[in-house]
Amino acid sequence: MNKIEHIGIAVKSIEKSNTLFASLFGEAHYKIEEVASEGVKTSFFKTGPNKIELLEATNPDSPIAKFIEKKGEGIHHIAFAVDDIESEIKRLKNEGFTVLNEVPKKGADNKLVAFLHPKTTNGVLIELCQDIKE
Amino acid sequence: MNKIEHIGIAVKSIEKSNTLFASLFGEAHYKIEEVASEGVKTSFFKTGPNKIELLEATNPDSPIAKFIEKKGEGIHHIAFAVDDIESEIKRLKNEGFTVLNEVPKKGADNKLVAFLHPKTTNGVLIELCQDIKE
Repeated sequence: MNKIEHIGIAVKSIEKSNTLFASLFGEAHYKIEEVASEGVKTSFFKTGPNKIELLEATNPDSPIAKFIEKKGEGIHHIAFAVDDIESEIKRLKNEGFTVLNEVPKKGADNKLVAFLHPKTTNGVLIELCQDIKE
Repeated sequence: MNKIEHIGIAVKSIEKSNTLFASLFGEAHYKIEEVASEGVKTSFFKTGPNKIELLEATNPDSPIAKFIEKKGEGIHHIAFAVDDIESEIKRLKNEGFTVLNEVPKKGADNKLVAFLHPKTTNGVLIELCQDIKE
């Protein structure tokens, strides 16, 4: 794993949180993107080599709506950048981790992504992500 | 803020979690450090420009013991690297954030650190950290 690609933060209102995180970083978000298949609207901030992704639910069945209902706003997942997501999925399955997406799916920000079940990773929802090559 | 310096993860057993995260990253931790003043034992992993810090409580009054009791194991805080922690504290107070340590304190890994109250940061406990210059 090459670096922390981003940290995903569940928020109730992207609009309000965009203002808050712009004050925190001293710099505005650089992108808003909706991922309809996941029921989320996302907003991205840069901090050096890493990103912060704010996640707002776009419908009540969205995993983000359920997360906020259960735990409140806060850190939702950590995403690590990988070069070859398919070989990482294979390696991590062999190591005993539960991979939630054995076939990587299309995520925000032009990435292929796969999640590891937090039960096998100390309660941390981990995302692997690989840039989609054109 | 220059980058995500590290993500702090609260764990029940550093020993067990060191094995787990070594499998995850394909590489062992590179340092164990106890911070007696905070009641924690820490373990560090590198992932490119970022670190993962595992935190185990060394006494029942440790903030980590209380966190795990309330929320279970999982992500405890995000730390951002800053060049000048005192000017960042001043800037963030002016922006309306609640800074928990107006005078930065000595943290793990030879850093000066200060935390922002999660109530003012969307439920996310944020640490600022600056290398201590020799």
